[in-house]
Amino acid sequence: MARLNSHPSGRHFLQIPGPTNVPDRVLRAIDHPTIDHRGPEFQALAKKVLTEVRAVFQTYSPVVIYPASGTGAWEAALVNTLSPGDTVLMCETGHFATLWKKIAEKLGLKPIFLGGFEEGSWRRGADSGAIEARLAQDTLHAIKAVCVVHNETSTGATSDIAAIRRVLDRTHHPALLLVDTISSLGSIDYRHDEWGVDVTVAGSQKGLMLPPGLSFNAIGERALAAAKSARLPRAFWSWNEMLEANAKGFFPYTPSTNLLYGLAEAIDMLQEEGLANVFARHARHAEATRRAVAAWGLEILCEVASERSNALTAVMMPKDNTGKTYDADRLRNIIHANFNMSLGQGLARLSGWVFRIGHLGDFNDLTLAGTLAGVEMGLGLAGVPHRAGGVQAALTYLRDTARARASEMTERRAA
Amino acid sequence: MARLNSHPSGRHFLQIPGPTNVPDRVLRAIDHPTIDHRGPEFQALAKKVLTEVRAVFQTYSPVVIYPASGTGAWEAALVNTLSPGDTVLMCETGHFATLWKKIAEKLGLKPIFLGGFEEGSWRRGADSGAIEARLAQDTLHAIKAVCVVHNETSTGATSDIAAIRRVLDRTHHPALLLVDTISSLGSIDYRHDEWGVDVTVAGSQKGLMLPPGLSFNAIGERALAAAKSARLPRAFWSWNEMLEANAKGFFPYTPSTNLLYGLAEAIDMLQEEGLANVFARHARHAEATRRAVAAWGLEILCEVASERSNALTAVMMPKDNTGKTYDADRLRNIIHANFNMSLGQGLARLSGWVFRIGHLGDFNDLTLAGTLAGVEMGLGLAGVPHRAGGVQAALTYLRDTARARASEMTERRAA
Amino acid sequence: MARLNSHPSGRHFLQIPGPTNVPDRVLRAIDHPTIDHRGPEFQALAKKVLTEVRAVFQTYSPVVIYPASGTGAWEAALVNTLSPGDTVLMCETGHFATLWKKIAEKLGLKPIFLGGFEEGSWRRGADSGAIEARLAQDTLHAIKAVCVVHNETSTGATSDIAAIRRVLDRTHHPALLLVDTISSLGSIDYRHDEWGVDVTVAGSQKGLMLPPGLSFNAIGERALAAAKSARLPRAFWSWNEMLEANAKGFFPYTPSTNLLYGLAEAIDMLQEEGLANVFARHARHAEATRRAVAAWGLEILCEVASERSNALTAVMMPKDNTGKTYDADRLRNIIHANFNMSLGQGLARLSGWVFRIGHLGDFNDLTLAGTLAGVEMGLGLAGVPHRAGGVQAALTYLRDTARARASEMTERRAA
Amino acid sequence: MARLNSHPSGRHFLQIPGPTNVPDRVLRAIDHPTIDHRGPEFQALAKKVLTEVRAVFQTYSPVVIYPASGTGAWEAALVNTLSPGDTVLMCETGHFATLWKKIAEKLGLKPIFLGGFEEGSWRRGADSGAIEARLAQDTLHAIKAVCVVHNETSTGATSDIAAIRRVLDRTHHPALLLVDTISSLGSIDYRHDEWGVDVTVAGSQKGLMLPPGLSFNAIGERALAAAKSARLPRAFWSWNEMLEANAKGFFPYTPSTNLLYGLAEAIDMLQEEGLANVFARHARHAEATRRAVAAWGLEILCEVASERSNALTAVMMPKDNTGKTYDADRLRNIIHANFNMSLGQGLARLSGWVFRIGHLGDFNDLTLAGTLAGVEMGLGLAGVPHRAGGVQAALTYLRDTARARASEMTERRAA
Repeated sequence: MARLNSHPSGRHFLQIPGPTNVPDRVLRAIDHPTIDHRGPEFQALAKKVLTEVRAVFQTYSPVVIYPASGTGAWEAALVNTLSPGDTVLMCETGHFATLWKKIAEKLGLKPIFLGGFEEGSWRRGADSGAIEARLAQDTLHAIKAVCVVHNETSTGATSDIAAIRRVLDRTHHPALLLVDTISSLGSIDYRHDEWGVDVTVAGSQKGLMLPPGLSFNAIGERALAAAKSARLPRAFWSWNEMLEANAKGFFPYTPSTNLLYGLAEAIDMLQEEGLANVFARHARHAEATRRAVAAWGLEILCEVASERSNALTAVMMPKDNTGKTYDADRLRNIIHANFNMSLGQGLARLSGWVFRIGHLGDFNDLTLAGTLAGVEMGLGLAGVPHRAGGVQAALTYLRDTARARASEMTERRAA
Repeated sequence: MARLNSHPSGRHFLQIPGPTNVPDRVLRAIDHPTIDHRGPEFQALAKKVLTEVRAVFQTYSPVVIYPASGTGAWEAALVNTLSPGDTVLMCETGHFATLWKKIAEKLGLKPIFLGGFEEGSWRRGADSGAIEARLAQDTLHAIKAVCVVHNETSTGATSDIAAIRRVLDRTHHPALLLVDTISSLGSIDYRHDEWGVDVTVAGSQKGLMLPPGLSFNAIGERALAAAKSARLPRAFWSWNEMLEANAKGFFPYTPSTNLLYGLAEAIDMLQEEGLANVFARHARHAEATRRAVAAWGLEILCEVASERSNALTAVMMPKDNTGKTYDADRLRNIIHANFNMSLGQGLARLSGWVFRIGHLGDFNDLTLAGTLAGVEMGLGLAGVPHRAGGVQAALTYLRDTARARASEMTERRAA
Repeated sequence: MARLNSHPSGRHFLQIPGPTNVPDRVLRAIDHPTIDHRGPEFQALAKKVLTEVRAVFQTYSPVVIYPASGTGAWEAALVNTLSPGDTVLMCETGHFATLWKKIAEKLGLKPIFLGGFEEGSWRRGADSGAIEARLAQDTLHAIKAVCVVHNETSTGATSDIAAIRRVLDRTHHPALLLVDTISSLGSIDYRHDEWGVDVTVAGSQKGLMLPPGLSFNAIGERALAAAKSARLPRAFWSWNEMLEANAKGFFPYTPSTNLLYGLAEAIDMLQEEGLANVFARHARHAEATRRAVAAWGLEILCEVASERSNALTAVMMPKDNTGKTYDADRLRNIIHANFNMSLGQGLARLSGWVFRIGHLGDFNDLTLAGTLAGVEMGLGLAGVPHRAGGVQAALTYLRDTARARASEMTERRAA
Repeated sequence: MARLNSHPSGRHFLQIPGPTNVPDRVLRAIDHPTIDHRGPEFQALAKKVLTEVRAVFQTYSPVVIYPASGTGAWEAALVNTLSPGDTVLMCETGHFATLWKKIAEKLGLKPIFLGGFEEGSWRRGADSGAIEARLAQDTLHAIKAVCVVHNETSTGATSDIAAIRRVLDRTHHPALLLVDTISSLGSIDYRHDEWGVDVTVAGSQKGLMLPPGLSFNAIGERALAAAKSARLPRAFWSWNEMLEANAKGFFPYTPSTNLLYGLAEAIDMLQEEGLANVFARHARHAEATRRAVAAWGLEILCEVASERSNALTAVMMPKDNTGKTYDADRLRNIIHANFNMSLGQGLARLSGWVFRIGHLGDFNDLTLAGTLAGVEMGLGLAGVPHRAGGVQAALTYLRDTARARASEMTERRAA
């Protein structure tokens, strides 16, 4: 595998917004020998992860685990609850929302695609006002589901799921609420039960700190009921067989055994740290990153402070005198070549205009400091106009907020 | 992960017919840190595996790699080539053929399900005579595809794919030929191109020596053409986007990065040994196993010698004086508890009647000897009537055929 | 590391009498990132292993852990307790006893080297009668230490340490008792405290199931007292600094951090199985091996049944009509080339005359079956006269004794 | 092993001056199954590492590899070349030089311990002028060896070995030159042959990027000759048996097999990068660190710019108004608790007065940025007077020197 290690000396900084840096404990877990997925050892493992993973979604509902990456879980959420020709209300928050919409179209659904405050601006989360207006119009309840991306990985904007739930309640609209948490679960507070979500879609390679290859549907009661009458063809993604087999600690087809080892370990790690601490950690690192961006004099893509993601920050490239935007991909390449760091590229219409800093998953202050240092040095090397001091601003914030944590730690130890 | 290691001392013998024993080289490969799936290192890896994996299928056609387990690749083969209501001819070789048929039904296809020589006997491969008869009747070419399992994992019977190709040719029938090689690829000689297969379905966890989690479609030109007009809804499984992205060394959605590391290593291992040697090794171990079964006085499920699988052997339990069959699962449990070995259970209608010995993947003479020793001792402990000497018979065969190999090795080294 | 994996398919059978097959749990433990050996995490680890390792020696005395292989621990036992020119009584049980004697000579000691019952026969353990005679003569107590190898790895003969202790007591001789348990600790019952041993020497790569690289001195009170006046020069091996640092959970120089991770895991594994079960398992596997050898019509090197090792069995090659011994190394090479198994060679005067089967460490019935199958097939391929049926004899024994264990297990589970 | 992972989220920064961060490639290499150290696979491995490791010492002489940590290699260098009562000239550069001297005393040698420019100041490398004066006095050549630490790990001061060689030549003194490169080999340019060193002592856990557990003696011809008449007792450390066995690719006693796997990998990595690049990388990171320290307004322990180590930087704590030194260990504890980073403590007389930043081994710009960020934030949290901007100063330097490297890379790629 030497060919995968041709990077220069030292550890690669994988600061894309997922896959994230897989912790050593998880890597060691997944390289245990594969076991019989029909034997008692596997059964014990499956029962453990199927039960314990629910807490990460903050739900008591069943969570289905697919041996497939996240795109599959998008498809699963749709084919299990909807029928050919069904209308679904989706929100154009960015590239991934658009991909989900395309999947809906391919599967024979009829998506209504709501833009942000300004159509297609990709600088906001979902507009609950616009959703409300559209649902209010739909007096015949043609709309069968509302689909929202909680944390849009392409833009770093989050959507207020609780507000959308309130909109559904206010309009007395029976549409299901399907939410993509692929890049928020295990990083940003997300509450499947409290927010009345019907299906939550998630993947392994972000806040869950695993390699890609597992994906999830947390399934509420109304979604389970809808599955009984849903007529989209489904086999691999079908919840029925999955839930039936899961009840006994097994899977209807071969599961991804080794990634499940990793999932067991990752859940342990999240529980050891405590979900509330995990969310606070992400919030603190995101704030430090935003302070660095502000100090550089650069603009964050997400326009609204309250919607800025705690998992990633998309940064807009400045324009030169002629109005031409500095090339984000050139910057990323220079940083990759000089500082052994991968940053996220601008996707689709954002290509070349933004770069994205992932600050989620198994992460800490000094790795963030290294990350921001790489960006600041890269801006310099690439000749992108900016003010120095972004790293300094972040460090000041991290230091000042660490001080608090340090004293808390002392108290907790004393207790 | 200690909880997964509660087995007694020593290495577990994972002798189910897949997942197989993952070699250390592959386990070490998959536990490398996850990298950016949009970066240059990943691109180099993807190009390598996408190119080199073709040789394992003995094809020059593209091979699509799904971040999903084998059941998904079954679905992919169908949804990419067929339209709602299409008739497909499938062959009831056993449990897995039946599962594939059920998937076809769920997707809205109309399977004709051909039994073996005796309807539903599950003791033979596909009956090419019956296929020919059925195709000959189908003068209007309603049948759009013929689906065959090359090596039926539930019974240990192989089907003669070349013969079925000749049937299609002889009847001038345009149906596509879709073949499941999940438990034969990398173990039993299989020739996608030479045998004129249109879609080959495969998985990672058998002859490819990987954990479960990857699956494959090798796609011939007629299948690619069929995909253009096929109207079954598809998104995750769609070949189009996959082939387009693969051409540049990327994937349309997040691939299973760490299992791809393992795939690169596994392909290297198969190439180092040489495919012909891999097949010969499996044939030799299968023959030794069959000799052991014969010496025990037990019956092999597959009735026809030429169709017996080189990947696994399903053994029928004898009956007692009252005509009652000894319980295969009790035997398996005793072996598991006493000898730390997992054997395959009888599936569906074979439940309790057979047990299955996997002898595929990363395997060698002494591990086979240990495996057969575990079976022989287990038969004794469980009070299942049998003659001693099965292990002895296998050893005699292994020794006598090893002698040849030894002298060849000497010559090869001398050369 | 592909170059280390050029073996043919399947898992290598490492059946030398150590290093033994390192279990996956231990391998995964040692590949965790190295930590600061002066930090609190290391301190917790060190305290754990320094405390818990004592139980493996069945002692309450301190055990010193060297970041060095076993030969170093031999040297350590001598230099910490003796002075230049001191007379030591050593017993010629085989090659390793001879090596230890040579070390004593190099260090300036004066070993008296007692042969077995027949001088230099290397087919017995230490002769406690001869020791008694020699000690009785030594009325001036010139002999400062008696050095015995508990399990002579080159011959498969054990020495009765309790008997030797009684001899020392009976003769009221103040000599220290130094015992090498390198290939017995964690495999054969050994009791540092109960047997009144003063220094026990051990290594990591046998019953402790670790790679080589750690070695041990368990140090009784009389040895500690002797260390105060011992005048052999010592620095690296000096107990003083080691014990002083160990008391705080640290080491006087850089310890072998990653092997200590492995030691913690290995101790956990031994405790999970229970030492008594570990010893019983080794005894059972040894008996099965001896039955195989007897069935082959071959002779075990160790002449006395009660002294035969439970860790390894050294087998003598038969002679042909002309009185020439069949070549053990040719046999071993044939087995290595054909069956991917390493057996122990005959060492020093035994070179070519014996081969050694290791059946210690992380081991189980089916791996033993594979091991014996490899020997039996190898004997056939090499044209060494033998009777078939050795494997069969071993299986019969394993099966019959497993039955008992199975029923016990049932009872234990019920309890 | 969860107990070793109780650190908060993210990767630990192990920035002590060794053990260093072991790269994933090396960790994966050492966790391969242990093999027979008397078999052909091991032989190939041993021949490879024994040959290739020489280049790292820049020598054509044999290099002996001990399965023991570095302190053992100190002892080995002495016991193989010297006789009881021999006078050796040693230089008090710091704690490790002092430990080596104590070993010499314990072994029965008579060290003359030369202080730095000011006796015992521990702020300089060895004083070649003082050595020259002492050797010139020694007209009877009582001094048998000059022992120097190339890079004093406790102080971050290097000694000019070439200059000391010239002193020996100039004074026509026949004493052997023994050099400790434990914390310089593979980090700072070191030339065993060109500088006429007789024995070079090294360890695995610093620039060689391995866990601790291996140590080295590179042995020049004069040292080999001296070994013939040297009379210090030796067994484990004896070169003779080692060189004899090594010639055939084996070891006279069980080697540390798994660490040798890692050594093979580490040598590959050093060769891939190129030794000159490795040294340049360390020099650049050291300079960046020194600029940070200067910007903080703190003092580097090593007084002479040309002697400052490229492997580590020892930083002096400032004094408060009352002349009391701020506590370095409190600072280190605060940094450990808040930022998950280990820094080196002040040793012996430096305890509490300095902290040491390791910037050697498998390391890169962003990890250094994270490291310095941790120090700067820690100084703040601990209330240690300093100026902000150290990180910024380092980043400016790294960026400006990276720019050059970037353009070189472009050219190299174009070529």
